Amino acid sequence: MSRVMSAELAKHAGQRVTIAGWVHRRRQLKSVSFLVVRDRTGLAQVVVPGDAAGALTGEAAGVAAGVGAGDLPSEESVVRVTGTVAASEQAPGGHELVAPEIHVLARPATAPPFDLYRPVVGAALPTVLDHAPVALRHPLLRAGLEISAASAAGFRETLDRLGFTEIHTPKIVGSATESGANVFGLDYFGRPAYLAQSPQFYKQAMVGVFERVYEVGPVFRAEPHDTVRHLAQYTSLDAELGFVRDHRDVMAVLREAVAGMIESVRLRAPAALDLLGVVPPTVPAEIPAIHFTEAQRLTSSNEPDLSPAQERWLSEWAEREHGSEFLFVTGYPMSKRPFYTHPDPGRPGYTNGFDLLFRGMELVTGGQRLHRYEDYVRALAERGEGTAAYEGYLQAFRYGMPPHGGFALGLERWTARLTGAANVRQTTAFPRDLHRLSP
Amino acid sequence: MSRVMSAELAKHAGQRVTIAGWVHRRRQLKSVSFLVVRDRTGLAQVVVPGDAAGALTGEAAGVAAGVGAGDLPSEESVVRVTGTVAASEQAPGGHELVAPEIHVLARPATAPPFDLYRPVVGAALPTVLDHAPVALRHPLLRAGLEISAASAAGFRETLDRLGFTEIHTPKIVGSATESGANVFGLDYFGRPAYLAQSPQFYKQAMVGVFERVYEVGPVFRAEPHDTVRHLAQYTSLDAELGFVRDHRDVMAVLREAVAGMIESVRLRAPAALDLLGVVPPTVPAEIPAIHFTEAQRLTSSNEPDLSPAQERWLSEWAEREHGSEFLFVTGYPMSKRPFYTHPDPGRPGYTNGFDLLFRGMELVTGGQRLHRYEDYVRALAERGEGTAAYEGYLQAFRYGMPPHGGFALGLERWTARLTGAANVRQTTAFPRDLHRLSP
Repeated sequence: MSRVMSAELAKHAGQRVTIAGWVHRRRQLKSVSFLVVRDRTGLAQVVVPGDAAGALTGEAAGVAAGVGAGDLPSEESVVRVTGTVAASEQAPGGHELVAPEIHVLARPATAPPFDLYRPVVGAALPTVLDHAPVALRHPLLRAGLEISAASAAGFRETLDRLGFTEIHTPKIVGSATESGANVFGLDYFGRPAYLAQSPQFYKQAMVGVFERVYEVGPVFRAEPHDTVRHLAQYTSLDAELGFVRDHRDVMAVLREAVAGMIESVRLRAPAALDLLGVVPPTVPAEIPAIHFTEAQRLTSSNEPDLSPAQERWLSEWAEREHGSEFLFVTGYPMSKRPFYTHPDPGRPGYTNGFDLLFRGMELVTGGQRLHRYEDYVRALAERGEGTAAYEGYLQAFRYGMPPHGGFALGLERWTARLTGAANVRQTTAFPRDLHRLSP
Repeated sequence: MSRVMSAELAKHAGQRVTIAGWVHRRRQLKSVSFLVVRDRTGLAQVVVPGDAAGALTGEAAGVAAGVGAGDLPSEESVVRVTGTVAASEQAPGGHELVAPEIHVLARPATAPPFDLYRPVVGAALPTVLDHAPVALRHPLLRAGLEISAASAAGFRETLDRLGFTEIHTPKIVGSATESGANVFGLDYFGRPAYLAQSPQFYKQAMVGVFERVYEVGPVFRAEPHDTVRHLAQYTSLDAELGFVRDHRDVMAVLREAVAGMIESVRLRAPAALDLLGVVPPTVPAEIPAIHFTEAQRLTSSNEPDLSPAQERWLSEWAEREHGSEFLFVTGYPMSKRPFYTHPDPGRPGYTNGFDLLFRGMELVTGGQRLHRYEDYVRALAERGEGTAAYEGYLQAFRYGMPPHGGFALGLERWTARLTGAANVRQTTAFPRDLHRLSP
């Protein structure tokens, strides 16, 4: 008998069907017992009459301590259950399986470190992370990753519609040019090499080929700080586009991408949103934007960058003044932006670089880039660097590049902000940080 | 005036429009000159009357050697051209721009290493790879990457439809367990770590969370051989699914994925297929499958693995006997498969592992995996290994895992086979190998 998903039981009322999944919860009462079976679509209740033993088949091997052969399989056992679909007000989805035959496909060797069936996660973050392969089965933790997957799908879908092409670029690079610090070194066939901190140089070069490109892939930062928002590896959603007037065209595409991500989450992961109680934000048709100097004025600051506290204040201000959970800050000072940032032609010392703040935190960094070879040579010279280490990068600009710009958004950080997770590790399947290299 | 793409000129016949792109080719005759402008949708011809100088505006700076200010911009200059759309039998797409105003956005500092406008790539592969940022602008090289992008989109689209969830897994791992050899080592905050050779362990663990998962991401092999089909980094299309009967359910999903990739290429990259003269293969409703022992018999071999020559012979046989460019070989011997491979319960010494051959080469490796904790402990012991190095991996199996299996397909190799490229480096934007670490 082919398998029916738990979410589809209502369609099969009165029929005999087979479901399969994990025992999410087992409740043995005197006269009747219940198994709640979890599959990828949700939960299904199975009603087992008093004498459970008669309903059981399947492997006797691998019986865990404390579970007798005649007992119902324990939590996280993998089962296939054939039963008759009956309406039930108490059951999840309004239907349950009665008169079941239960076949055990696999029994756990160990009980989970915390109960997966409880409505909240009953363990601290380190326990969760140490036991990720089983902990992520908890519906709340799983929901975050579903939202993450739906977000990435929406990002790609939106950019595909806008004429972008997906690229895959090297993660092993020959020089640690982009920032110098916080880079992982490796032995590349006896030569020193580094893990790429971003696809920045490659996505710019590929604007010369496809005009509009994006990449969804890992980036690596040897981040020596242990914070709630930094990881040693994260998934970067990168885009870059040519033939822009200036950074405003980039911001318009970013607005579309973020709106598309949210729309995709609504469409693809509504149950996950419900479970987490998340109401996705509305993206204004035009996201409010203020210049960096205005942000300084509003926060009474003279610093050349915004602190986390200022970002929080500005987000609240945007919500209050513009009813927007998103805020662009444009025109960051040259001194705080990488050498490839395009200066603001009308305002010396400032750039066409921007950040997008979302719910109190910087979510995206982007801007217009330099596009003329001679401007790169000059910009490097001004920072006291020659072009030697950048030859591969500068090649694209030797051969004619249009005005262009782009942005990068960290998927895990996005998901954390969207779901209200306090720590970016909660929305990462197997995080890597200063202390964590497994599982 | 907002920009029109070259492929849309016919829609604007008689109108004055603006296009933008690179000078693909410049032909200066006595009484008239032609500029062919390349944008992301194709080529557009611009007719420039005798006195070109009058048509030119834009930056005088950065003029390359040999190009006088009054001359038409040289190849790979970036231009914006406003002109009137006129029908023309000689022009690409049947229309051209007349009475142009040409604005130069950027001029190249150097001429390309070979002519990008010639119908074939006029340079040897090392030259192409050394100059990838400009070489990939050649329509033939670009076309391969377009087909690659369309293939990856089709892979995801098909698996999304089949209820799979996208995952992102660590590329930095704590132990070099999967194969031991050919692994890149790195310094992880003072501890030894390794680049992941595949997401194998993580995708299996995530079957416990989502049942059906896929990942499109980089994998790393410190491949010491210099061959036409190996890279040190490639893009792996990985899938894994639970609740299978055996490997045949995995093969059925793989068949759908490959058919979806081909359909996506047809829909998203028809111009690239035309340009390369590629006719995508038909995927049979059921791909023919033979057992490994039958493959041995057909090729008169006793070896425990198939050589490249045998793979070619078997592919030709499948084409001849079954009219299929695809062939499954199932039941590879235990000795040639990783320890997590599920044995064939009916045939000692053989596995539920398979390869998919496509046009003479192994394209995909897959199979059913072990799913019981105690089977993993036994399998490791049989290979003389303990479980210590595998604790993170084995965790998933401690907590109940369904019968499952999966497969992995190399995107660059797939694209090379599909387009008839002799070397996998031709379908990789910036390949990494024993000798190459830049650009």
